Amino acid sequence: MKKICLLGATGSIGTSTLDVIKNNSDKFQLVAMSFGKNIEKAQKIIEDFSPKYVSVQTEELAETLKNKYPQIDVFYGNEGLNQLVQTDYNLLLNAVMGSVGLIPTMTAIELGRDIAIANKETLVVAGDFIMPAAKKAGVNLLPVDSEHSAIFQVLQGVKETDLRDITITASGGSFRDKKRSELVGVSVGDALNHPNWSMGAKITIDSATMVNKGLEVIEAHHLFQVDYDDINVIMHRESVVHSLITLKDGAMYAELGASDMRQPIQFALTYPDHIPLVNEKEFSLAKLATIHFEEVNYERFPMLALAFKVGRLGGSFPAVFNAANEVAVAAFLQEKIEFLDIEKIIEKAVGNHVEVNDLSLEKLIFIDSETRNKVENWISDKNF
Amino acid sequence: MKKICLLGATGSIGTSTLDVIKNNSDKFQLVAMSFGKNIEKAQKIIEDFSPKYVSVQTEELAETLKNKYPQIDVFYGNEGLNQLVQTDYNLLLNAVMGSVGLIPTMTAIELGRDIAIANKETLVVAGDFIMPAAKKAGVNLLPVDSEHSAIFQVLQGVKETDLRDITITASGGSFRDKKRSELVGVSVGDALNHPNWSMGAKITIDSATMVNKGLEVIEAHHLFQVDYDDINVIMHRESVVHSLITLKDGAMYAELGASDMRQPIQFALTYPDHIPLVNEKEFSLAKLATIHFEEVNYERFPMLALAFKVGRLGGSFPAVFNAANEVAVAAFLQEKIEFLDIEKIIEKAVGNHVEVNDLSLEKLIFIDSETRNKVENWISDKNF
Repeated sequence: MKKICLLGATGSIGTSTLDVIKNNSDKFQLVAMSFGKNIEKAQKIIEDFSPKYVSVQTEELAETLKNKYPQIDVFYGNEGLNQLVQTDYNLLLNAVMGSVGLIPTMTAIELGRDIAIANKETLVVAGDFIMPAAKKAGVNLLPVDSEHSAIFQVLQGVKETDLRDITITASGGSFRDKKRSELVGVSVGDALNHPNWSMGAKITIDSATMVNKGLEVIEAHHLFQVDYDDINVIMHRESVVHSLITLKDGAMYAELGASDMRQPIQFALTYPDHIPLVNEKEFSLAKLATIHFEEVNYERFPMLALAFKVGRLGGSFPAVFNAANEVAVAAFLQEKIEFLDIEKIIEKAVGNHVEVNDLSLEKLIFIDSETRNKVENWISDKNF
Repeated sequence: MKKICLLGATGSIGTSTLDVIKNNSDKFQLVAMSFGKNIEKAQKIIEDFSPKYVSVQTEELAETLKNKYPQIDVFYGNEGLNQLVQTDYNLLLNAVMGSVGLIPTMTAIELGRDIAIANKETLVVAGDFIMPAAKKAGVNLLPVDSEHSAIFQVLQGVKETDLRDITITASGGSFRDKKRSELVGVSVGDALNHPNWSMGAKITIDSATMVNKGLEVIEAHHLFQVDYDDINVIMHRESVVHSLITLKDGAMYAELGASDMRQPIQFALTYPDHIPLVNEKEFSLAKLATIHFEEVNYERFPMLALAFKVGRLGGSFPAVFNAANEVAVAAFLQEKIEFLDIEKIIEKAVGNHVEVNDLSLEKLIFIDSETRNKVENWISDKNF
């Protein structure tokens, strides 16, 4: 029985993870979970899965839970997340949204726990610290993003020296068929309407700006230790080819299938085994009939170009890129700024940033926080 | 230095193999080769590669070679092929056409030599004998067909228990856009005009009838020890997805790339390494833009249905199917029969065949020969 600690249990990845755990209750047990504020959904999960440890965003919600479920150890806030990952479990599935996932990941690594990582911001912000720590601790970092899982899956039989490059596929998000001039004044509702994947709000907006693809590029650089020159992005409308690798002789290996996050999640949980997926979605290449590929238009999607740039700059630049995006997307979802302002804000934050010497994890966390404050002020002042 | 014995040196696969050997002369040396009658091409190869052993189809050609190249040991005929594979080399690349490749393959297995197998007829006729012999001898059977190489490549990191099924892609050959009624009276020239691959005449005709895909299905059954129920064929016009596997959780892995036989050949030679392919063909999914998949229409391609049937019947049925096809295709290429007669002849041969008890390799070879004689008589008598 593999004991699972799930961060972000009420989110989209969390829900799919719980589905996998429930369908394989002989193999997996949810022992610890965190959620933000969705207490109704969380109570349903607690009753279905009986976790021993729960962490929640606020002290108030923690009190409510403690009263209702006295048998559960309840934690709260960022410190609570970090306490949760110190409990007794075998695998951490980190599906929180944003760089808040960073410290719990680092703690789990130090404790030698394997990690299924859906929280790409952690690697974007601090991949240079996370990866060596994981290596040193002998911890498996198992990707959950469909793109990274695809690459990870097809890499299984491949020697490091045989790999030439990787190719991440991109659907283009909800506005892929719009020109930049058509993006003026688009609504939150339109932005949340992703063509292929049903996901959380933040990642759906990130898909529309292609910041998400940019974060994935930086994540892939760290996870697979591949140079930015050896990471390609290709437009692929149908999202059935989840990503590809190219070997030294030109052979490309792709992982493909239905748009169902339960597959990469389950593989991260069952790694290195592939076991049947309960209620597997039907998938037929013949029914699909046609699939498309296209070069990325970097002028249409300047955030992807900027992500490559900050990735190559390295240091604290990816952290600034990510923090500015997190705050800007939250502001857009609250209708405080326009869709195109997200890009402006990120560009300004990256443009203003001066690289810091002798970077440490603490400095990165400080820069993350500092950037958030700065960007929040810009938004309040409408000055970006 | 890996010493190579190449059967079928002047054919299409032979030519690609020699290109790989020449481009990696620090790794590979051609020490033995066979060819049929193309002495001009063969002399060029002999002068370029200086093999120590050569086998040729007729005694007369053998004499010519002996006189011209006294330093070479020259053999001839089917017995010559079998002598050639008993010389000193590390890897046999068997690219002869037809079931004549069977005995040399068996001899090489008994001698414990690894075999790169482009001669699918060998496995179709005698897979039930070849596979256990190879296993017993600890011999690697490395597929050279692009479809089987694709499956073999993506299977490298996959545990046998994780595999659900395999999917072989089919271009549909030169007449794929014609209805059956439009096949009446088609010319040899039209049939030889394959849309994606430049190959030998026999395999190009086999592609047009989809007998080739049927032989591949039977070959895959043996090579990968997969039930016929777990072998799918899917139409894929562009031949860029060379084939796919599906794992237990629904994840599909595909190998894709340019239509260049040098890639699978080189991988068979360098296995398990992937090394750069000299003069690699450009391949871009984005430039390709669109790729297509379609269900197979088994009424349009009855030979593929029949191949599954003879495969499932097993025993000597696949040998009969193959022998009838070989003779019929040769007759079509000599314009002795019509294109659609190929199917009629195969159907008659399979329909007339009565299964033999206590099958042995010797009996299979006899049945192969008996079927050829029968079919040749039918063709002479115009009685099929």
